[in-house]
Amino acid sequence: MKLKSLFFTVVGIFLILAANAQASGDYKVEHKNAIVLAMFGTTVEPALEGLLNIRSKINAKYPDTTVKIAFTSNIIRKKWQHRAEDPDYIKAHPEIPADVLHVKTPLATIADLQNDGYDTIVIQPTHVSMGEEFLDLHTYVDALMNMGTFKKAKYKPFNKVALGRPALGTYGQEHPYAEDIETVARIVEPDVKLAMKEKAGLVYMGHGNEFFPGNGGAYLELASKMRRIYPDVVTAIGNVEGYPAIEDVIELLNLYGVKKVVLKPFMIVAGDHSINDMASEEDDSWKSILDKNGFEVIVVKKGLGENDNFANIFADHAADAAKDAGIILK
Amino acid sequence: MKLKSLFFTVVGIFLILAANAQASGDYKVEHKNAIVLAMFGTTVEPALEGLLNIRSKINAKYPDTTVKIAFTSNIIRKKWQHRAEDPDYIKAHPEIPADVLHVKTPLATIADLQNDGYDTIVIQPTHVSMGEEFLDLHTYVDALMNMGTFKKAKYKPFNKVALGRPALGTYGQEHPYAEDIETVARIVEPDVKLAMKEKAGLVYMGHGNEFFPGNGGAYLELASKMRRIYPDVVTAIGNVEGYPAIEDVIELLNLYGVKKVVLKPFMIVAGDHSINDMASEEDDSWKSILDKNGFEVIVVKKGLGENDNFANIFADHAADAAKDAGIILK
Amino acid sequence: MKLKSLFFTVVGIFLILAANAQASGDYKVEHKNAIVLAMFGTTVEPALEGLLNIRSKINAKYPDTTVKIAFTSNIIRKKWQHRAEDPDYIKAHPEIPADVLHVKTPLATIADLQNDGYDTIVIQPTHVSMGEEFLDLHTYVDALMNMGTFKKAKYKPFNKVALGRPALGTYGQEHPYAEDIETVARIVEPDVKLAMKEKAGLVYMGHGNEFFPGNGGAYLELASKMRRIYPDVVTAIGNVEGYPAIEDVIELLNLYGVKKVVLKPFMIVAGDHSINDMASEEDDSWKSILDKNGFEVIVVKKGLGENDNFANIFADHAADAAKDAGIILK
Amino acid sequence: MKLKSLFFTVVGIFLILAANAQASGDYKVEHKNAIVLAMFGTTVEPALEGLLNIRSKINAKYPDTTVKIAFTSNIIRKKWQHRAEDPDYIKAHPEIPADVLHVKTPLATIADLQNDGYDTIVIQPTHVSMGEEFLDLHTYVDALMNMGTFKKAKYKPFNKVALGRPALGTYGQEHPYAEDIETVARIVEPDVKLAMKEKAGLVYMGHGNEFFPGNGGAYLELASKMRRIYPDVVTAIGNVEGYPAIEDVIELLNLYGVKKVVLKPFMIVAGDHSINDMASEEDDSWKSILDKNGFEVIVVKKGLGENDNFANIFADHAADAAKDAGIILK
Repeated sequence: MKLKSLFFTVVGIFLILAANAQASGDYKVEHKNAIVLAMFGTTVEPALEGLLNIRSKINAKYPDTTVKIAFTSNIIRKKWQHRAEDPDYIKAHPEIPADVLHVKTPLATIADLQNDGYDTIVIQPTHVSMGEEFLDLHTYVDALMNMGTFKKAKYKPFNKVALGRPALGTYGQEHPYAEDIETVARIVEPDVKLAMKEKAGLVYMGHGNEFFPGNGGAYLELASKMRRIYPDVVTAIGNVEGYPAIEDVIELLNLYGVKKVVLKPFMIVAGDHSINDMASEEDDSWKSILDKNGFEVIVVKKGLGENDNFANIFADHAADAAKDAGIILK
Repeated sequence: MKLKSLFFTVVGIFLILAANAQASGDYKVEHKNAIVLAMFGTTVEPALEGLLNIRSKINAKYPDTTVKIAFTSNIIRKKWQHRAEDPDYIKAHPEIPADVLHVKTPLATIADLQNDGYDTIVIQPTHVSMGEEFLDLHTYVDALMNMGTFKKAKYKPFNKVALGRPALGTYGQEHPYAEDIETVARIVEPDVKLAMKEKAGLVYMGHGNEFFPGNGGAYLELASKMRRIYPDVVTAIGNVEGYPAIEDVIELLNLYGVKKVVLKPFMIVAGDHSINDMASEEDDSWKSILDKNGFEVIVVKKGLGENDNFANIFADHAADAAKDAGIILK
Repeated sequence: MKLKSLFFTVVGIFLILAANAQASGDYKVEHKNAIVLAMFGTTVEPALEGLLNIRSKINAKYPDTTVKIAFTSNIIRKKWQHRAEDPDYIKAHPEIPADVLHVKTPLATIADLQNDGYDTIVIQPTHVSMGEEFLDLHTYVDALMNMGTFKKAKYKPFNKVALGRPALGTYGQEHPYAEDIETVARIVEPDVKLAMKEKAGLVYMGHGNEFFPGNGGAYLELASKMRRIYPDVVTAIGNVEGYPAIEDVIELLNLYGVKKVVLKPFMIVAGDHSINDMASEEDDSWKSILDKNGFEVIVVKKGLGENDNFANIFADHAADAAKDAGIILK
Repeated sequence: MKLKSLFFTVVGIFLILAANAQASGDYKVEHKNAIVLAMFGTTVEPALEGLLNIRSKINAKYPDTTVKIAFTSNIIRKKWQHRAEDPDYIKAHPEIPADVLHVKTPLATIADLQNDGYDTIVIQPTHVSMGEEFLDLHTYVDALMNMGTFKKAKYKPFNKVALGRPALGTYGQEHPYAEDIETVARIVEPDVKLAMKEKAGLVYMGHGNEFFPGNGGAYLELASKMRRIYPDVVTAIGNVEGYPAIEDVIELLNLYGVKKVVLKPFMIVAGDHSINDMASEEDDSWKSILDKNGFEVIVVKKGLGENDNFANIFADHAADAAKDAGIILK
């Protein structure tokens, strides 16, 4: 190959690449993208910070993409509906963003986007772990993609609907969940450092699930991974609901001979569970139980969403979901 | 069996029946029902009458059930969105109901109901005939019913979603479409009487569909049925789009030796198609074409929805759909 | 950029391209394609010719692709199951191919292919028109494509399942059904020529459907199209079931003043309906009814599948379906 | 009400009740039930005992119901296909049942039943725990139930398809998985007794899953539950794939000071994994690793399916699935 022909080959390849970019540029004009953050929600105003921080991170990553939030909890949504109709509340809480006040279900949020001409949606749950709520969202994705196919494809209500994975990962081989767990294990290092400074073990209170077998496994795998990455601190995780429970945490702490612990929620927000189930002076709070079992307890009431690196996980997972689905977010 | 024991047996059976009624009464408390009227929509204000008349009929039949309207046409919805944001328009048109001004897609309308706690929905399209739009709605029903099944059944986003059939009926054996056609043939008698008084044939302009084979068959079957029920008037139906076209109408009129016709839209509303495609002075309007072909033409610009008996068909079909699905509307 | 680095850039790009080609080459190897011909079926041995001719045409077009036949009729399949277990029948009918003797449902046929490692299926129905049987197959396609998605995509039971359209076309804009009707209108020219030679009208007996509104429309549109392409012959189509019926055919023949007709089935096979409903001496056969109504009748008992050009329609439609789905048949 | 009319009322009610019983009797006649056992499969002949024992238990429970087995593993099925075509193998192995030799995928097995007129299927997996294979089967169930709905309901390919739960339970509130875990914990008492007799800990080797987060949680919850029910024996469970691994088992044994263990597969069959990964003399077998780490190891090569009570779990879960779906097995 002579130099000249070599040069034209290179130029030719560049032109082909540029043409592809153009073509995909045209395509994008037809479809409007949006991201829906599907959160359980909270009614505790200061706890919103953990949720809104995740929204901020996604906004920062994709400044030109519409981002909507949705709450899955019927009870929490109903409370916000009442507040939204209460002028006194609104006056007293000017800090509450409008999209929290008027928050809807994921389906209604997605459908409003469809009503406004968006047909390409990335649903990013802020779940910690893969469980039934995530599988439920999976059925939404399948359902939305199965809607309206008897005319030309471009008239389908939804062009593409993608589902981002929880913080601790999901099934499948594309993004091995063990890598997600390792990422989380490294991102929560500040918690380990705090425990180390206090010469304490680290006890996380996760949410958990009584009706999804194995749900606790991802938490336990994280704790196991953390004990290996940070051998100087004994990390144990238990759940408010289901296995592993506080009894399992205590069994482990005793086996390791731990006497003092830092106790922190392993949830996105430090909301109701943190206040009541974890830190309250009630007899059955984790703090009380650990006290009674002879542990010295340092309570930290901060949600994972307030950790910027943790919040960014959801932005990264939304990015992966979009990329896997061939959606170009901007 | 002695008389006494016979008596108690009877009483016992009555008590059992009463208890069942009670139980099914309790069940209803858990679910909230609503009806969604899925309409193509119109931007022509006076033509709204046809649509709103259908809503009135359903409201009258089920005074205690929430009824929402939705427009399927993106273009029409977009126009209403602009009007809703135009204070001058709103001032000039105080007669437009709020639910038309702020009308949404069927999906967004259904999802808003879900957001408000409704989980049992009857979707009643105001389609004249079964075609791709109806099949598209069918995929919505399947999709909504396939959402969220990994927890207890009662947490499913939708308990039941039922789909009412178009005016001219649908597939399946539960409600033979030929009976629906016969019902329609009898309900449009006033149109036949008008034609008879005018010693004219009756020409209906349906909408039709270029991309759904056989769509015209239901119209043709109706016309055939009408010619048999009302042998004194030659009824012919053609469509704006697809088969049968105005040429097919003219072929039939000529075969029957008809010289004069009453021309009326066979659409729910007398909107854009009635004004332009049917009745305008443009060269390619049906009126002009019929003129040119030597027919005397009497134009009637009224939508089928303005015929109370026709509007009631959709209330009846919603009732059937609810009953078939075990939904009790009130 | 220096020449040396330019060279390595080019080489690098070539290597990347080559690797991709390799990868996509490997990918194709992983999938095995097959075609399933979904037929209603027949128990009349000579009528099989129409079906087997379609299979031959597809075999001829794709000699390296596995082609399986399936019968949708439970009654017909059951009869073949009995025959397959009857040694006397098999001895007396050596001409019956094994895949007819042991014919299964479409689902069982597809599932056997999956069991044998095929994951890419083109289902080609031999339906004349789009009706509920076709829509039922559509639900199969959706269902098969929705199976097994929680692991790596390549482990899904089915990579791709595509559905070919009936002879008279289907919904949607990719392949406008009016073009399919025009194709059929031209392909049946030999029937028109026969009628012309006989100075007769042409009456087709289609199957039709009492429970799918509008089904008759595609037949009527074909007849209308044929009357325009072949103005010297009056073509009329009626159905055994549903609209248009023989009464509608007679209405049309009388309007056109036709006295003599060629009567032929508009079905793939000249089976039970041809023998009994069309041509028998029973009082209610079409032949008898036409006789009684004063028409001279010439009966032709041949299925459309015996017309090579008609049989080829299904091969062409399978080819379109494969192409639309990105399936490469060989 | 006079006595006479009362009498006729009562008789009337009885007749109505009798008629209903008759009707529901007729209805049942229309549907044919079958059970499909969905197994991963094995190629190790003696290991089949664990699988066939489960089949026997279901046959014993429902002697009048057709029970079919299916293997999900492509590799294992392919090996049986080769064996089925090898006359020498068949001659040498007269003990292999025909339905193992000719075993198919779950879909092909179900579809063959549909071809034979069965429309009501209970799929009972023999999975130990809920993971992606189980969710994949869930998509099959949804898909099969979504097939063919445009005609009368009774013509649907499948009337009802129900999915039984794995041994360690599944999501949802109808059958809390924690109760299933407790049931299993009690059923494996013979293993605990053996360990107790040997004054050893009990180490189970489960299969596990690298690509389903949390899968290990159900195993860990079982081990935790067993340590509480049987406090005299330290039970630990690890998986061949994914978390918890043998390292996690050793961590726990060391924490509890265990020196000697009974090592047994926690799998339905004592097949390839038992022979190679667990018990072989290879360096990386669990036996070798435990040896190297200073544990005394007693190996037991028996599958859980050989424990009659364990095998019966699947019969019980099939019974629950049938009952929940309103299927009456006989």
